[in-house]
Amino acid sequence: MTHAVAADAVELLRRVIAAPAALHEPCFHGNEEQYVSECVRTGWVSSVGKFVDRLEDQLSEYTGARHAVATVNGTAALHVALLLAGVQPGDEVIIPAMTFVATANAVVNCGAVPHFIDIEDRTLGMAASVLRARLSEVTRLHDGTCINQQTNRRVAAIVPMHTFGHPCDIQQLCETASEFGLPVVEDAAESLGSYVDGRHTGTMGCLGVLSFNGNKVMTTGGGGAILTNDESLAVRAKHLTTTGKRPHRWHYEHDCHAFNYRMPNINAALGCAQLEQMDKFLAAKRRLAATYRATFQDAAGVQFFDEPSGCRSNFWLNALRFTTPGSTMRDSFLRESNDAGLMTRPCWTPLNRLPMYDQCPASELPVTQRVFESFVNIPSSVKLAESD
Amino acid sequence: MTHAVAADAVELLRRVIAAPAALHEPCFHGNEEQYVSECVRTGWVSSVGKFVDRLEDQLSEYTGARHAVATVNGTAALHVALLLAGVQPGDEVIIPAMTFVATANAVVNCGAVPHFIDIEDRTLGMAASVLRARLSEVTRLHDGTCINQQTNRRVAAIVPMHTFGHPCDIQQLCETASEFGLPVVEDAAESLGSYVDGRHTGTMGCLGVLSFNGNKVMTTGGGGAILTNDESLAVRAKHLTTTGKRPHRWHYEHDCHAFNYRMPNINAALGCAQLEQMDKFLAAKRRLAATYRATFQDAAGVQFFDEPSGCRSNFWLNALRFTTPGSTMRDSFLRESNDAGLMTRPCWTPLNRLPMYDQCPASELPVTQRVFESFVNIPSSVKLAESD
Repeated sequence: MTHAVAADAVELLRRVIAAPAALHEPCFHGNEEQYVSECVRTGWVSSVGKFVDRLEDQLSEYTGARHAVATVNGTAALHVALLLAGVQPGDEVIIPAMTFVATANAVVNCGAVPHFIDIEDRTLGMAASVLRARLSEVTRLHDGTCINQQTNRRVAAIVPMHTFGHPCDIQQLCETASEFGLPVVEDAAESLGSYVDGRHTGTMGCLGVLSFNGNKVMTTGGGGAILTNDESLAVRAKHLTTTGKRPHRWHYEHDCHAFNYRMPNINAALGCAQLEQMDKFLAAKRRLAATYRATFQDAAGVQFFDEPSGCRSNFWLNALRFTTPGSTMRDSFLRESNDAGLMTRPCWTPLNRLPMYDQCPASELPVTQRVFESFVNIPSSVKLAESD
Repeated sequence: MTHAVAADAVELLRRVIAAPAALHEPCFHGNEEQYVSECVRTGWVSSVGKFVDRLEDQLSEYTGARHAVATVNGTAALHVALLLAGVQPGDEVIIPAMTFVATANAVVNCGAVPHFIDIEDRTLGMAASVLRARLSEVTRLHDGTCINQQTNRRVAAIVPMHTFGHPCDIQQLCETASEFGLPVVEDAAESLGSYVDGRHTGTMGCLGVLSFNGNKVMTTGGGGAILTNDESLAVRAKHLTTTGKRPHRWHYEHDCHAFNYRMPNINAALGCAQLEQMDKFLAAKRRLAATYRATFQDAAGVQFFDEPSGCRSNFWLNALRFTTPGSTMRDSFLRESNDAGLMTRPCWTPLNRLPMYDQCPASELPVTQRVFESFVNIPSSVKLAESD
């Protein structure tokens, strides 16, 4: 059954973009082919090569983080960032209930347990007020350690995430974390090019992580990075992501359990070319968002989700919110738009509703549930705005 | 101090190859640039794309394994293969003491503990006789489960590895594993193109893994694969390496803790082009090995390590063995050859001597220690034989 509000929303979508349209396609109009070919011609495609170093330098310069360590993907970056923040087996790590499943998987990769906090309507990120209330309610400080009294597990870190590229309330979240003595690892997988008060997302916790998966603002095929201002953390990040090998001209000695999480040089080559075009990408995405904003301005029953005030978003994935309670309108829209060749999708299923995470500790999650039922993402590729 | 035997060995090495020479450089003389450029031009660089499927099909055909699942690297492949073999936190996994550290790291990634077995002189792989003696000595079957009585941990799997590409005694090892009810996961990271009695390495256990790191016979920049003849294991391997997402046109639902271990399409493109040239690569490596064999045939105090009888080796890394006891000759050779621009290296430091693994259970390891002290790897790139 088709609902008028959903049908009208699909019709408005058609005014902005022609079918077929993917959700987010990469755009390779720069030096991608040249740099990648250079890797093949010189033979430097793998774990060592100038593009890895160059990408790390460029990411550091771009984000303002003192150090950037390239990794094989964003999950790998988050796994190692959590370890560097001190997460140990049996700990709890606080994450929003509404995020890509990789955020929780990285916690489990450390042997730790996710603890879900509700999100807020304004940013779609973790709600600082809920975080404070939840920590006050369930934790106590024992010898300087934050213990969840309901589970007897140590709470080891807080991982805010910038949903769809829109910055969350990172400053309030960092303040709350600080009150409880908890480190913040910022999951900026979706928010390269997004800023809060002029500071790049991913640079406000003790560590931050980026993702360059194929659906992100810029891509390396698969890839990610760890950001930090702390040199010793950066050195350890490099060591842990490169099998923990001690430098030597010929000996093979490794001094800790570590990971093969290096970004190959050929993927870094792609990334260098992409990062050169970020200003152009972000401008195009902002134009597309402006078009969506104008198009849906007077629509009944559906709203364009705009960047939070005080923030500059990369508008990674544009989103619409249906105002009718429940998921009927969303489901009708998803069916009709996808049938018409316009790729749209709902939010991720809230993590507390997935079978492997449904027993994890959590705050009440009413906003998460409401956002899940009412939001959809709509096509957001750079190329959809290029003709402007 | 320079020793005559070592100096003579360097001199013999110089007769075969001109300095400078790397240990193992990739060779890109096929369709690499074309395929990689095609990815960039079409935009298919990331987690979906035809080259991933094509590489998996080609690997299956090449190795004779019914199924191949491409992964982001060999460590990732081994991690998931161990999980699929049933390895659980707190288990022990039997591996050779002489292998790259990733073999042990993958065990620890499962929450399990490595248990080291000595290698044999003939193959440089795990010694089947030592394995049988060790399992007989320390394990007992309790309700069909193999328990290490000294540690009270379950022994969950055996991971033979084909050192430098030379096949280990996989048939005897599989027989012994079977006697004790243990699954075999074959670490064939170094042995693409190596066969035992006509069967490709990596296809004789319940699962096998390959690596396509930059230093391997063929490379994808970074990459690996899981091999299996069991369709249900292959389906689960794909699911676990692709974040455990359930297929749906738009919903994002994941049904298990899983991993972002996909090989990106751009890396698979490189792999497809490389695999097309495997016969040429292997022929060149065999020619180079023949030249080394002839050159060192009458040398005093040093021997070329040849492929074990009944096997066909890919001669991934050629190796020399110094016959003087101790590591003096090896160290002298390493210093002199590297100073001369010829890249050589010793074996990996035995895993039982690394700080994070020195408390792990182990058999006596006399051969591992002797091999470590007396072996060196010498330049083995395809291009060193191309002029033949």
